[in-house]
Amino acid sequence: MRFQPSPAHLLALSVAAAAVLTVPLVASATSGSSADPHSRRTDHTESLRQQVIGGQARNVILLLGDGMGDSEITIARNYAVGAAGHLTMDSLPMSGEYTTYSVQRADPSMPDYVPDSAATGTAWSTGHKSYDGAISVLPNGRPIPTLLELAKTAGFRTGDVTTAEIEDATPAVMSAHVTSRDCKGPANMAACPTNDTLNGGAGSIAEQQAVLQPDVLLGGGGAVFDQVVQGGKYAGLTVREQAQSLGTQIVTTADELATARGDQPILGLFAPVNMDLEWTGPLAVPGGTEPAECTPNSDRDVDQPHLSDMTRKTISILDHQTRQSANGFFLQIEGASIDKQDHAANPCGQIGETVEFDRSIKIALKYQRTHPQTLVVVTADHGHTAQIVEAGSQTPGATATLITHDGAQLEINYATTTYPGSQQHTGTEVRVAAKGPQAANVLGITDQSDLFFTMRRALGLD
Amino acid sequence: MRFQPSPAHLLALSVAAAAVLTVPLVASATSGSSADPHSRRTDHTESLRQQVIGGQARNVILLLGDGMGDSEITIARNYAVGAAGHLTMDSLPMSGEYTTYSVQRADPSMPDYVPDSAATGTAWSTGHKSYDGAISVLPNGRPIPTLLELAKTAGFRTGDVTTAEIEDATPAVMSAHVTSRDCKGPANMAACPTNDTLNGGAGSIAEQQAVLQPDVLLGGGGAVFDQVVQGGKYAGLTVREQAQSLGTQIVTTADELATARGDQPILGLFAPVNMDLEWTGPLAVPGGTEPAECTPNSDRDVDQPHLSDMTRKTISILDHQTRQSANGFFLQIEGASIDKQDHAANPCGQIGETVEFDRSIKIALKYQRTHPQTLVVVTADHGHTAQIVEAGSQTPGATATLITHDGAQLEINYATTTYPGSQQHTGTEVRVAAKGPQAANVLGITDQSDLFFTMRRALGLD
Repeated sequence: MRFQPSPAHLLALSVAAAAVLTVPLVASATSGSSADPHSRRTDHTESLRQQVIGGQARNVILLLGDGMGDSEITIARNYAVGAAGHLTMDSLPMSGEYTTYSVQRADPSMPDYVPDSAATGTAWSTGHKSYDGAISVLPNGRPIPTLLELAKTAGFRTGDVTTAEIEDATPAVMSAHVTSRDCKGPANMAACPTNDTLNGGAGSIAEQQAVLQPDVLLGGGGAVFDQVVQGGKYAGLTVREQAQSLGTQIVTTADELATARGDQPILGLFAPVNMDLEWTGPLAVPGGTEPAECTPNSDRDVDQPHLSDMTRKTISILDHQTRQSANGFFLQIEGASIDKQDHAANPCGQIGETVEFDRSIKIALKYQRTHPQTLVVVTADHGHTAQIVEAGSQTPGATATLITHDGAQLEINYATTTYPGSQQHTGTEVRVAAKGPQAANVLGITDQSDLFFTMRRALGLD
Repeated sequence: MRFQPSPAHLLALSVAAAAVLTVPLVASATSGSSADPHSRRTDHTESLRQQVIGGQARNVILLLGDGMGDSEITIARNYAVGAAGHLTMDSLPMSGEYTTYSVQRADPSMPDYVPDSAATGTAWSTGHKSYDGAISVLPNGRPIPTLLELAKTAGFRTGDVTTAEIEDATPAVMSAHVTSRDCKGPANMAACPTNDTLNGGAGSIAEQQAVLQPDVLLGGGGAVFDQVVQGGKYAGLTVREQAQSLGTQIVTTADELATARGDQPILGLFAPVNMDLEWTGPLAVPGGTEPAECTPNSDRDVDQPHLSDMTRKTISILDHQTRQSANGFFLQIEGASIDKQDHAANPCGQIGETVEFDRSIKIALKYQRTHPQTLVVVTADHGHTAQIVEAGSQTPGATATLITHDGAQLEINYATTTYPGSQQHTGTEVRVAAKGPQAANVLGITDQSDLFFTMRRALGLD
């Protein structure tokens, strides 16, 4: 390679298939190799047909890249493994795009073309469209069972993992029902009067998670668990104490997670709010930046596990717990800060989280190889702002230029909100890809709510 | 429906599956129907497996939406048939995304992350990556046979159809080889000295098209054909006269096209430059527009055929020509002005072209149903600028707000170039979808150059 990899590129390289590193950049276009599983220079019809598998899965692993639209995927690929390289997520054989629109709360017959992570998560968690901010409730506020709850009730083991606050929208949609995503803890219930324990409700997201007790629940958001429960039988306890009183083991560091045994429900709270970013680098600014490389985030708390650590451990625990069982497990894993750093116009932040998310996909797919009765789905909740534009060009937005794995300049444009405001989600359809039983049902153009039915069917719960 | 369709919506409605019009907006999310081929509430594994067909095709129809990224597809769907509606292109069973990067002319080992339509078209026409501006030549200028040429040589009938100038990049990549896309006619050869007939070259794009004589070659670009050939044996003739002297029938109106018989090569030149737009409406501006609907373009020259007319006629001619033959046909059809109106920040222009392109897809798929040994591929050449943002939001770019088929507001952001400059392409991966023999090879993440091999294999030319 003509390019000397930086530390962040070296981090990224472990993501790439080794073969990619030994062939020239344009090899896939000019020389070709039947050994390359991505090249279609040779006919892959037979091997693809063999991947069209119906029937039932023992396990479902849903990996969700928050805000990871096709543009964000391409940005991460270009930066980390080069334009002709392949992320692990690129290897999923069944692929489609799905629509992500939410509905308007005041009139649910009307679409909202730019959804948030609460409405989108509610769609694949429950099979129902709802309004932005809804956490697995219908537009009228009625709770709808989530796939995680249905799986748990049916005897499956369950996990819910994120790099955000565990009470954030995407993990919450599987494990709670509130009328607003803001109702994370007992002190945050202003927007959810009907859910408030003081009014006889099931409580905040954290309180409901404490009661639901998925077998593994990992993320940030520890500060919310220090809030004091206001009503009901746990009044006066912190949510953390409530969880412990119900038999949940709380872990707060990577080491504690590594040694946790899974003989009781595990709640990992590894940061007060969101977990730390993997990478750092220049923020996009009006007029652009000098070309730069990303670097590992030296401020990252080393006591926090990486998403790939949490993924490996969670799969290990759930696999161990189900070895003697009739039923397997359902697990949702979120790479949350792809979205958050897209909002922040922070390309290295966004890419570093995508690369770490991709590493987690690698772990899930490795498990799937030895446990083929596992449906692995990789998708996003909604599109986001980042666009790849001509290197050296001026846009009305904020831009940053990175020097990629190829050694070339990659200019990224953030222009859905006037600088320095938080950038917007977009309403584009996004990629959904899968492997294993029922995976073919992601082909073509589907809707996000369809994924609920595909996963539910895979688990035999319909 | 709560919404009174406008003329443009009514135009669009014929695109939608009738079923979509009779169910409420959120039906796919809340009620479901096993009759809906798009819903995955029921298992489609078996029917999808039956669509994974290897072997050889008799015909290949490639439909290319210029600049039709996933964002542009979603915009057209939302506007024309509603968020829960389905475009015809949504029905293609095999789907993936492909990478579109080009290479740098000065150093072809380096990628250019934001390609143009010449480089991208060269990739699927020849299987080789090249530089922006290259018309089926390698970075060193060497011509590479195109799929259309290979098919013609092997005895297939061929067609090349566009709504742009027939000498524009996308139609040109199948039917010419020049070192710059600007070399459309004999008076435009400054950038292509080695191709100039005065230097013993094969001449401009138009001259090469006149000599190649695809069986059907339809589009705009008539003015270029009025240029006078400068060198070689046709010197002194206009390119139009050159084509006629070689036995090509030239048609210039929809009526002439309708009555053309196909017993000699047909060259349709229906406009001096690009063909007219289908729809008109508010252009995006800084600060946004009042919500509005698109309307049919009353300035459109009614003597011009629609893209769907050209598609229907071309398929009819090629089918007729090949009924008694061992070989079928290869046909490329481009919806060109999706891109051009994205550049112009003209959402109604862009959507109207997408809807008309979708109507052409419907014609191709109808043919495919009765001629299943036809591979139909629908894709784009590169991503583009348009983004769906929150209705009512302010961005640093130019925006326009449309009232959609749903009766809801759809705000579209154009922010890759400072207003009023031409908006940029983007580097995102784009959708590729297919039906018929070899269609499964578009699954997953492939590269644009792979499509050449898939189509070549389908025609048995490898």
